[in-house]
Amino acid sequence: MKALVYKGPGEKALENRPKPEITAPTDAIVTITKTTICGTDLHILKGDVPSCQPGRILGHEGVGIIDQIGSGVTTFKPGDRVLISCISACGKCVYCRKNMYSHCTTGGWILGNTIDGTQAEFVRIPYADTSLYLIPEGADEEVLVMLSDILPTGFECGVLNGKVQPGSTIAIIGAGPVGLAALLTAQFYSPAEIIVIDLDDNRLAVAKRFGATSVINSADGKALETVMKITGDRGVDTAIEAVGIPATFELCTTIIAPGGTIANVGVHGTKVDLHLENLWDRNVTITTQLVNTVSTPMLLNVVGAHKIDPKLLITHHFKLDDILDAYETFVKAANTKALKVIIET
Amino acid sequence: MKALVYKGPGEKALENRPKPEITAPTDAIVTITKTTICGTDLHILKGDVPSCQPGRILGHEGVGIIDQIGSGVTTFKPGDRVLISCISACGKCVYCRKNMYSHCTTGGWILGNTIDGTQAEFVRIPYADTSLYLIPEGADEEVLVMLSDILPTGFECGVLNGKVQPGSTIAIIGAGPVGLAALLTAQFYSPAEIIVIDLDDNRLAVAKRFGATSVINSADGKALETVMKITGDRGVDTAIEAVGIPATFELCTTIIAPGGTIANVGVHGTKVDLHLENLWDRNVTITTQLVNTVSTPMLLNVVGAHKIDPKLLITHHFKLDDILDAYETFVKAANTKALKVIIET
Amino acid sequence: MKALVYKGPGEKALENRPKPEITAPTDAIVTITKTTICGTDLHILKGDVPSCQPGRILGHEGVGIIDQIGSGVTTFKPGDRVLISCISACGKCVYCRKNMYSHCTTGGWILGNTIDGTQAEFVRIPYADTSLYLIPEGADEEVLVMLSDILPTGFECGVLNGKVQPGSTIAIIGAGPVGLAALLTAQFYSPAEIIVIDLDDNRLAVAKRFGATSVINSADGKALETVMKITGDRGVDTAIEAVGIPATFELCTTIIAPGGTIANVGVHGTKVDLHLENLWDRNVTITTQLVNTVSTPMLLNVVGAHKIDPKLLITHHFKLDDILDAYETFVKAANTKALKVIIET
Amino acid sequence: MKALVYKGPGEKALENRPKPEITAPTDAIVTITKTTICGTDLHILKGDVPSCQPGRILGHEGVGIIDQIGSGVTTFKPGDRVLISCISACGKCVYCRKNMYSHCTTGGWILGNTIDGTQAEFVRIPYADTSLYLIPEGADEEVLVMLSDILPTGFECGVLNGKVQPGSTIAIIGAGPVGLAALLTAQFYSPAEIIVIDLDDNRLAVAKRFGATSVINSADGKALETVMKITGDRGVDTAIEAVGIPATFELCTTIIAPGGTIANVGVHGTKVDLHLENLWDRNVTITTQLVNTVSTPMLLNVVGAHKIDPKLLITHHFKLDDILDAYETFVKAANTKALKVIIET
Repeated sequence: MKALVYKGPGEKALENRPKPEITAPTDAIVTITKTTICGTDLHILKGDVPSCQPGRILGHEGVGIIDQIGSGVTTFKPGDRVLISCISACGKCVYCRKNMYSHCTTGGWILGNTIDGTQAEFVRIPYADTSLYLIPEGADEEVLVMLSDILPTGFECGVLNGKVQPGSTIAIIGAGPVGLAALLTAQFYSPAEIIVIDLDDNRLAVAKRFGATSVINSADGKALETVMKITGDRGVDTAIEAVGIPATFELCTTIIAPGGTIANVGVHGTKVDLHLENLWDRNVTITTQLVNTVSTPMLLNVVGAHKIDPKLLITHHFKLDDILDAYETFVKAANTKALKVIIET
Repeated sequence: MKALVYKGPGEKALENRPKPEITAPTDAIVTITKTTICGTDLHILKGDVPSCQPGRILGHEGVGIIDQIGSGVTTFKPGDRVLISCISACGKCVYCRKNMYSHCTTGGWILGNTIDGTQAEFVRIPYADTSLYLIPEGADEEVLVMLSDILPTGFECGVLNGKVQPGSTIAIIGAGPVGLAALLTAQFYSPAEIIVIDLDDNRLAVAKRFGATSVINSADGKALETVMKITGDRGVDTAIEAVGIPATFELCTTIIAPGGTIANVGVHGTKVDLHLENLWDRNVTITTQLVNTVSTPMLLNVVGAHKIDPKLLITHHFKLDDILDAYETFVKAANTKALKVIIET
Repeated sequence: MKALVYKGPGEKALENRPKPEITAPTDAIVTITKTTICGTDLHILKGDVPSCQPGRILGHEGVGIIDQIGSGVTTFKPGDRVLISCISACGKCVYCRKNMYSHCTTGGWILGNTIDGTQAEFVRIPYADTSLYLIPEGADEEVLVMLSDILPTGFECGVLNGKVQPGSTIAIIGAGPVGLAALLTAQFYSPAEIIVIDLDDNRLAVAKRFGATSVINSADGKALETVMKITGDRGVDTAIEAVGIPATFELCTTIIAPGGTIANVGVHGTKVDLHLENLWDRNVTITTQLVNTVSTPMLLNVVGAHKIDPKLLITHHFKLDDILDAYETFVKAANTKALKVIIET
Repeated sequence: MKALVYKGPGEKALENRPKPEITAPTDAIVTITKTTICGTDLHILKGDVPSCQPGRILGHEGVGIIDQIGSGVTTFKPGDRVLISCISACGKCVYCRKNMYSHCTTGGWILGNTIDGTQAEFVRIPYADTSLYLIPEGADEEVLVMLSDILPTGFECGVLNGKVQPGSTIAIIGAGPVGLAALLTAQFYSPAEIIVIDLDDNRLAVAKRFGATSVINSADGKALETVMKITGDRGVDTAIEAVGIPATFELCTTIIAPGGTIANVGVHGTKVDLHLENLWDRNVTITTQLVNTVSTPMLLNVVGAHKIDPKLLITHHFKLDDILDAYETFVKAANTKALKVIIET
């Protein structure tokens, strides 16, 4: 089968690889129909994710059709259309039983990382019963690709951790795909003000279309002042960090109102300064999280009820044969205005 | 009246000062019967608290008897025995109505800070109805002095924010009065393991008597290894920081288990490093808080029911006339083994 | 001044009454600009509310302008435009400090019940600082009349107690003003399915316009079957009872899914049968509540941000001089299609 | 093997039955070392549980040793000592993934009900990985038998649902084994007052020993008055119903304070009257639940840390050969003072 393979820092190739096989009774083999590329795939390609070794098929998002199931799989049968979660959950370990699937002792984020992933014609999914979701009849499958990772990530790590509430004032720092996913899913809770901050005017324009009530281009270094002006010097109840660098995290710690919550979503590669000399008495909460995807059934319901339209996140389409072009487009997002690209097999 | 007055960095004196008067209808004048000294008073004396200017009577803890009430006070009458909260709450502002009294727009921590405090024969208490608590008949008033500040601080900022749960594993870093208050009040929730970490063997011995299941003297720089050994390499569910320096905060961020909570109680004077490159995917929560004292009615109930014995925190007794000795004893805690000192008028 | 006075069961009159005066320092006198009639006023007129004695000016909803303030009022000044809460909260008692204003030991629902109410040119509001809300500039005051009672009632007693969640399935039984208020405010949380049940096709048509995804006229006695059909035999996650009779409450207990919540909003005059022989193992929660109006500041935010349009609830307008006609219209809602009527002074 | 078999209403026998066999890959066969009898077994014997048909081996509690495992079992191996949960959880269905194991679509309470149970030398446990718990080294296995059902039942359905809090006032109605389990586990949260109500003075004396602060024999019909006297006419914050008849449930609804919670634990066979005409505005919550046993890992921790001593619940010991005597003793609890009886194989 065709597969996009990580060949070491800076290198990737579309190769022919053997079709995966069932290796445990709880496995399923899924025929991929649509997949996509994540910012994390770019991190891997830079060599920043040591757990992912050369030779690995990338990708942890997608939808497909059950091809085969192991003897222990009871929830699915060949032919079922399924959504693939980016997180594999055994359903048995101490973390899975607390609904912290991201810390599953034998799973977690392994797809396209420590085992072969979804940017291929087929993929082996461990713990299929607890890591796949049946696609409801009539659903738009392209939209559901957004539910493999970015929607639950924006929602769980940003919106739920950030305790977005009706009538509250929130800021989202970073209007990339995950920041925009937080923007879409924050609206489940009807905040009164949604401020989106980024350096890219195109992405800010997209944020406006997605429901931001104010957008701020922070290139002028005045984001803090602007937020304070918008909020009557009170700051925001929730600040969602969706970039992953010190400057944006530290911005969050200055715009947060007393009693507020900073929900970190960004993947950080270095330490940040935490000014506890200013924050110790501010009654603030800071959270970090790798997505658990426990919200997937709920997101299927809400998307099914057309409460949000994640299709807005999809900007480009490619065939698997052209996946190298898809990567090129996704990498050069500032020029191509790419958010999420759909890759069809 | 006699009063302990801050005279500028490094200086204090027991002086004669006029008896305070009612200045607003919501004020009460309280005759102090017992007060105490807080670590924060020492911060002020070092000149570290710019809001507190020379000439200020110190102290924000104590019990006493209502001497006079303003025309708007409806809950108390002269002669009532009352517990003074370290936080003054107007009961009307947006923060008070969210039970965030520490951020009361015209109150908060003002006693012995921006208005005269309790280390005196009398004190004026603003917003008396919502800042004083009737002392139940038969209560040990000395014990209740612990409820002005350190018990609600340890409980709200440490135990509640830290989400201590039955069966959980917690660590308290710092066995000073507030850390010990967290240790006592953590036991309201029956954690299975309570690890206390400090540099002072005497305080660790006290912690053992107060209910710690393990104590660690971190002088050898091996606190992290020891915690991991005790917890089977899992880390702790709750880490309560009760010191206020970078090293102890950073220790909390290394001993915390996935899904755990770091509750900062310590007063920090400088930034700390937050290693988000290690923490971004750990599903951890960090909280900061200045005490709101919303838990005071509950603490009165629990202490009244003898669920904990805060008397253990009281090591020394002085008369107001000898308050300078009391300060001396409290400052030299490493030698005197002082925890809380009671000052009687 | 003109005022609508309860004269005993079945009797009311528009009378001339002396203008109210400040009787406590925490009082304010408010010039009413707009008020309305509540279903509870009809209960009083039937003689069903013994606490309300003949001679009482009715009404507990409205907006107006501060005319005078007592010496203890600090939040408002004459000329301020204010929203009147149906609940008076002293802000000091044990219940107020737990945000249970409805059980305020000296307040609660007293307006138009045990003290004179808002269906008059002026009203005395006790505990003005904690029972009135400043009207934001530019707000539509007519809409804000809906925030005195029915929106917080539908929201707090129905939506919050009912734990409405994104993606969940809810049923609202009763499409009168309060049921419709629950319908509007439930949408703050983006439920996937909202089923509204009533006997009146007009009200069901209104419910459809307000966002119901299904409506059921229960006249055929098949509401249970229909709900089960809509929900794939699972039942609903939240059932909001907004009628107040045994049949509708008992319907809630049959349509509720395992793990679900029944939020009672209706005012009941008689006992109901609770079939614990069916429910004991169903993991359900039943809640009752008189509105606390703690959500008023939040509702002001959400309505200000145009997340919902409570104006939809207003069907008729009258002058205070014509308040008897307003009552007539409101009583005969089945014919007049009245929901809420605005009465202007 | 020997097994206690339900032979139809009023009849049971100790019989020889074939040893159970693995029938699904997720099964384990467990050699029972200790089991016990539950009040529910008596209900079955009365013919009150139609799902349980004659021929069924009774029992849903116990500890034992893994004898065999199915090919899909990964958490346990033969020889492991295990605690058996009364609830079988597939770990995959919509309810299991919400931690509502009691409603598992293919499990729930099936042991000794719809499949053969634990009052035998061996038992087949479906979904072994998610329905058994490894016994910590050094644990008192007799004590752990209390963790199969009654401790999680008292804790989850009574204490957690009842929101017992530090300093709160609670009442437990019914001092049978489950009521006493609620009494023990309520103390995890340090309530200030624990009132236990029963008709049996012996059980009330036991309750006193277990930590009740007041006990009331309700035979005189004055339980309501007595509770009001104890609580200063306020009522209780939490009322735990652990009997299962209308009178005790209705008592709960009269002693509950505004804002309080009634947690139903009792198994009811008939409807109760719910006086909504008194309760609609009382801000109360009523919960029902069949135990999910999600708290088992936590209970293992707390019992391991000796926070409570469930051994107090064990009054008698029998050999499996004498299980008919054990039933006799358990049935005649009023005379024998039996609480829980341990049956050893």
